[in-house]
Amino acid sequence: MTSLHDASVRGFASDNYSGIHPDVLAAIAAANEGHQVAYGEDVYTARLQELFVSMLGEGVEAYPVFNGTGANVVGLQSMLPRWGAVISASTAHINVDEGGAPERVGGIKLLTVPTDDGKLTPELVDREAWGWGDEHRAQPLVVSITQSTELGTLYTVDEIRELAAHAHGHGMRLHMDGARISNAAAALDVPLRAFTRDAGVDVLSFGGTKNGAMIGEAIVVLDPEASTGLTYLRKLDMQLSSKMRFVSAQLVALLENDLWLKNARHSNAMAQRLRAGVEAGLADGSIQGVEFTQPTQANGVFAILPVGVADRLRRSFRFYDWDELRREVRWMCSFDTTASDIDAFVAAIARETSA
Amino acid sequence: MTSLHDASVRGFASDNYSGIHPDVLAAIAAANEGHQVAYGEDVYTARLQELFVSMLGEGVEAYPVFNGTGANVVGLQSMLPRWGAVISASTAHINVDEGGAPERVGGIKLLTVPTDDGKLTPELVDREAWGWGDEHRAQPLVVSITQSTELGTLYTVDEIRELAAHAHGHGMRLHMDGARISNAAAALDVPLRAFTRDAGVDVLSFGGTKNGAMIGEAIVVLDPEASTGLTYLRKLDMQLSSKMRFVSAQLVALLENDLWLKNARHSNAMAQRLRAGVEAGLADGSIQGVEFTQPTQANGVFAILPVGVADRLRRSFRFYDWDELRREVRWMCSFDTTASDIDAFVAAIARETSA
Amino acid sequence: MTSLHDASVRGFASDNYSGIHPDVLAAIAAANEGHQVAYGEDVYTARLQELFVSMLGEGVEAYPVFNGTGANVVGLQSMLPRWGAVISASTAHINVDEGGAPERVGGIKLLTVPTDDGKLTPELVDREAWGWGDEHRAQPLVVSITQSTELGTLYTVDEIRELAAHAHGHGMRLHMDGARISNAAAALDVPLRAFTRDAGVDVLSFGGTKNGAMIGEAIVVLDPEASTGLTYLRKLDMQLSSKMRFVSAQLVALLENDLWLKNARHSNAMAQRLRAGVEAGLADGSIQGVEFTQPTQANGVFAILPVGVADRLRRSFRFYDWDELRREVRWMCSFDTTASDIDAFVAAIARETSA
Amino acid sequence: MTSLHDASVRGFASDNYSGIHPDVLAAIAAANEGHQVAYGEDVYTARLQELFVSMLGEGVEAYPVFNGTGANVVGLQSMLPRWGAVISASTAHINVDEGGAPERVGGIKLLTVPTDDGKLTPELVDREAWGWGDEHRAQPLVVSITQSTELGTLYTVDEIRELAAHAHGHGMRLHMDGARISNAAAALDVPLRAFTRDAGVDVLSFGGTKNGAMIGEAIVVLDPEASTGLTYLRKLDMQLSSKMRFVSAQLVALLENDLWLKNARHSNAMAQRLRAGVEAGLADGSIQGVEFTQPTQANGVFAILPVGVADRLRRSFRFYDWDELRREVRWMCSFDTTASDIDAFVAAIARETSA
Repeated sequence: MTSLHDASVRGFASDNYSGIHPDVLAAIAAANEGHQVAYGEDVYTARLQELFVSMLGEGVEAYPVFNGTGANVVGLQSMLPRWGAVISASTAHINVDEGGAPERVGGIKLLTVPTDDGKLTPELVDREAWGWGDEHRAQPLVVSITQSTELGTLYTVDEIRELAAHAHGHGMRLHMDGARISNAAAALDVPLRAFTRDAGVDVLSFGGTKNGAMIGEAIVVLDPEASTGLTYLRKLDMQLSSKMRFVSAQLVALLENDLWLKNARHSNAMAQRLRAGVEAGLADGSIQGVEFTQPTQANGVFAILPVGVADRLRRSFRFYDWDELRREVRWMCSFDTTASDIDAFVAAIARETSA
Repeated sequence: MTSLHDASVRGFASDNYSGIHPDVLAAIAAANEGHQVAYGEDVYTARLQELFVSMLGEGVEAYPVFNGTGANVVGLQSMLPRWGAVISASTAHINVDEGGAPERVGGIKLLTVPTDDGKLTPELVDREAWGWGDEHRAQPLVVSITQSTELGTLYTVDEIRELAAHAHGHGMRLHMDGARISNAAAALDVPLRAFTRDAGVDVLSFGGTKNGAMIGEAIVVLDPEASTGLTYLRKLDMQLSSKMRFVSAQLVALLENDLWLKNARHSNAMAQRLRAGVEAGLADGSIQGVEFTQPTQANGVFAILPVGVADRLRRSFRFYDWDELRREVRWMCSFDTTASDIDAFVAAIARETSA
Repeated sequence: MTSLHDASVRGFASDNYSGIHPDVLAAIAAANEGHQVAYGEDVYTARLQELFVSMLGEGVEAYPVFNGTGANVVGLQSMLPRWGAVISASTAHINVDEGGAPERVGGIKLLTVPTDDGKLTPELVDREAWGWGDEHRAQPLVVSITQSTELGTLYTVDEIRELAAHAHGHGMRLHMDGARISNAAAALDVPLRAFTRDAGVDVLSFGGTKNGAMIGEAIVVLDPEASTGLTYLRKLDMQLSSKMRFVSAQLVALLENDLWLKNARHSNAMAQRLRAGVEAGLADGSIQGVEFTQPTQANGVFAILPVGVADRLRRSFRFYDWDELRREVRWMCSFDTTASDIDAFVAAIARETSA
Repeated sequence: MTSLHDASVRGFASDNYSGIHPDVLAAIAAANEGHQVAYGEDVYTARLQELFVSMLGEGVEAYPVFNGTGANVVGLQSMLPRWGAVISASTAHINVDEGGAPERVGGIKLLTVPTDDGKLTPELVDREAWGWGDEHRAQPLVVSITQSTELGTLYTVDEIRELAAHAHGHGMRLHMDGARISNAAAALDVPLRAFTRDAGVDVLSFGGTKNGAMIGEAIVVLDPEASTGLTYLRKLDMQLSSKMRFVSAQLVALLENDLWLKNARHSNAMAQRLRAGVEAGLADGSIQGVEFTQPTQANGVFAILPVGVADRLRRSFRFYDWDELRREVRWMCSFDTTASDIDAFVAAIARETSA
């Protein structure tokens, strides 16, 4: 098969528009040839397990899966009885972007809370944390947070610790959707363990695809008492890869030599460059009428554009509306976004807003 | 990441113990770099769609998914109302090897029929094809067959045509689990279309993973009237790949230049070589006490071994018990099985059975 | 069996704390003796169907079920494909009081909207009415309203008509949870048809249990094109009564001679008497510190009580906290609530609040 | 409501074609009037609990539900993790008569075994009792038997004991579908406890509807360690009655004064009279060509009729075909079947077969 696309085109639509980091592709090739036991009894999956233990400590268990929705639904299902419910921000991916998979495949009731910045607090959790023992109410037994959030914001280590203590204090468990956990780790600049296991997170969806993998995420059980039956659930939820060595090899490549952090630092830096560029333009008047709606703490920038600007910009750079009514857009940076991409984009924003 | 395994070791456990065909790996690389729209709006998925149309005719629709269980469950779900049931052989993968996913994720009742060779017939279908309109009975609305079967056997074109006519005559649809459809196509030596769409199959799971892909199958809707909502179902069943270009590129690589057929012809030929080698050994007395339980029509050989032989053989070659009670084993050949592998295995069988 | 309870005790906890209206009990007895075809092919179910047709017009179809949750979930499921979602008020019974049955049994995603009074408006619907065609979003295809609402409020005929037009204009259907539809009909004082079928409601849960039946509700399909497979769904959702004649006979007894309206007029009147009594007490100073939180439009009164009053009152009269944080309570009147019950309760409120 | 049916007509179609035993109806009336706490916190449900404890010993827990399918699905769900499977006879009600509810609502995989007489044996169980720990296989964790069976046959106490020991020995639990457990108790003539709890049954569906109740069954947990979350599951599976006092009162009426046994003894005796009458006719030549296909051990008679006889008989007496292909029919007797009914039916059989 020959290449069919223009490999020089990049945009700001999503970090999953990008491709495979060369080291990840090399790892797939390195894991190839010969036979390996299917369904996870291979050396690459064993190696991945070792890497997670080295990062997160003894007793953690990693279960590679295909995609982020799968990681979330299977992970949450393993934390809940059939009558369980999950408290999440109303903007959580599990609530708005998974086609109802948590409810329909997982049989999970979501109890959602509006937030300003995509982040739960103990107070916000308490709006839905009640009714235990009442059979009429789906039982709130897990709190799920996203790190970094769907709005490009970040929980601090202390905030996570506080949420975990609060959840545990009510007999609930803490789940972290880490589809972009690499961006969070890079931004917080602390070890993975510090803001996950040590902060009280019980089960983690560790994302690879948005950070340079081709297909690959892992459910990482940080407290084995918080999760039951993952082996069976992964299979029956259709997230068990037969040639798992190749999923695991991708994640191994990301974790070895800190590639996951390097990639995330880069995409975070590109988001900062974009924000700084636009802010500089606003300051010097070359850009007009752009407002930011969220702090830029990871690899996404959220902004409100003047009327008509989004559509004109999109003739050259692909990106998504976030809230069409208020003209809010989302610009995502990826591991392969270049400084030139950013500069060209900022220039375009200047061109289209000063017109 | 460096290679961690001995790439020279191969066995007969499963065609999913093998790796990625070099052309498929090259296709993944060719699809890399730059940005492509996620979730299937990319040029490789478009190309895959073209290839299926060229093979199967106008109007067919291909939906890449992650794995075979996903292809089956999502495909079947799209063919059925919530009260529907599927008639299958009791040995069908959907019944015995999917952890209950059809029931639990798909909400599908399976009505299973024992068979000798993994193949349904109209008469066997009729054992469960009744009760339409009776609300107490899950409504049999789809017949599902596997081609080639889980027992290494093959439906002829006429047999499929007859089953399709029978199913359609009762208002049922025909689904084909084609996890090993390449082996069937190679063995039948007729165009894909001849034993699928033209024979009356309505929806097809087209397998890639067992035939040289890394991760990748496709649901192929042959009669669009037989399937509803696949776009939504694929998402909510967690089988939607974000970087779909790489799933599609694998399948494109298999379909272009007939790689799918070349790989399958090879694994079929290796199975024939294995069978012929053992039969020759039985004839000349160098092998003793081995009985075949199924015809060898695709890439699997099923045999009963003398007491103790399986375990001794497994010190050198990995393979599975099929029916432990009767000492039946399954030997699967793959696209990368070599003639030397076969010859060494036949020699080992001779050594262990003549002892 | 002898009676084990004190039949003179009544409270204000719920309209389902009351028993069976004597006419309904007589109807059960009248339907007894001899054999009748099970599962709905009996003369009482046929008579019920006639009654609904006479009230709602040709083409409507009634499906008796056991309880309100069953009526809602089965009815909604029949209106939705597997990828469908329902827009409702966040206070809707389907969201807060069904243990997650819509999600878990129905496979339905709920898209909920906060309201002041339990009532949706077209503007509130629009907060969630978007994203059709986007496979990542559960597809909003039904709007569900409760009449009278869980907060004791009422939609006017015009409000329902407007919501139906709005929903239909977006290709959505309108579902009405009528667990207390009798109270609504009595309060609106218009024919059932005027505020259901003629106003554009597509599928209705018609409640009997809270209005004098023992066990019995009906799903009433007002637009047959809005609902598919109810016969099968009722069975597989475990809501099919074998001795259905007795469920139907109860509903027949309610519908004949307008017993449903008489009962509801009475319970509504008792709620008005309670409200008027407390208001009079507030006016003349005999009652202090009670605030009403909702208009009293059906058979429920919602009020905020001074600190400590609720618990003291509950020594004599059972009722529920509604929102414990703000000391809001709910007082429900039933078909068997007497004027003396109300007067004694008002006197107790006076006693406890003036202390 | 006036009576609409001919109360003198009875047939042999099903024990759920009959109505309510007068004592049960009286119990409903005795439980009426006044207010009782909804959802099971009433004195009649407490009384029912006492009765089950007195019959089955300390520690058992009874959960009233609406119908037999509900009792089975909720009970089984409470015994199984999400990955569990149930081994049953292929003729089991859960497999053939519940519209797929176990799979679709319960998420339960059924592993079914053909039997001659509707009864499992340890050997038959072993055909599906394997594969624990293999994530590809739905995990067999419960064996479900029906007592008396769907074919009118009976497990002896020893057979149940042996099945329980066998199941427990493999880490599985034993479930009993007792939709007709009264007929079994009457036929075995031993205490309920002897062939349930003491024999090793873990969870029981105790049937009332087919034995003189109007609507009412109970899930009875015999070993509390075998079942989790029933309170929540009953609610979310839509089997929680609001006015539960009336469900419980029916069961209380059946259990008090041994009405359950009296009714069942009667219906069993009527089945014996029917069998004896036909056998006498066969012996004296007044009846010709009728063959029995099962022993008559409870209240059902299964027979093969000469061509055309079934349809002619059905002009006067309603009953069902069981296996149309082999002309097998089922004749069910009920608590209200009279000796005259039987004698008239035997006479009709003689008339139609000797013609």
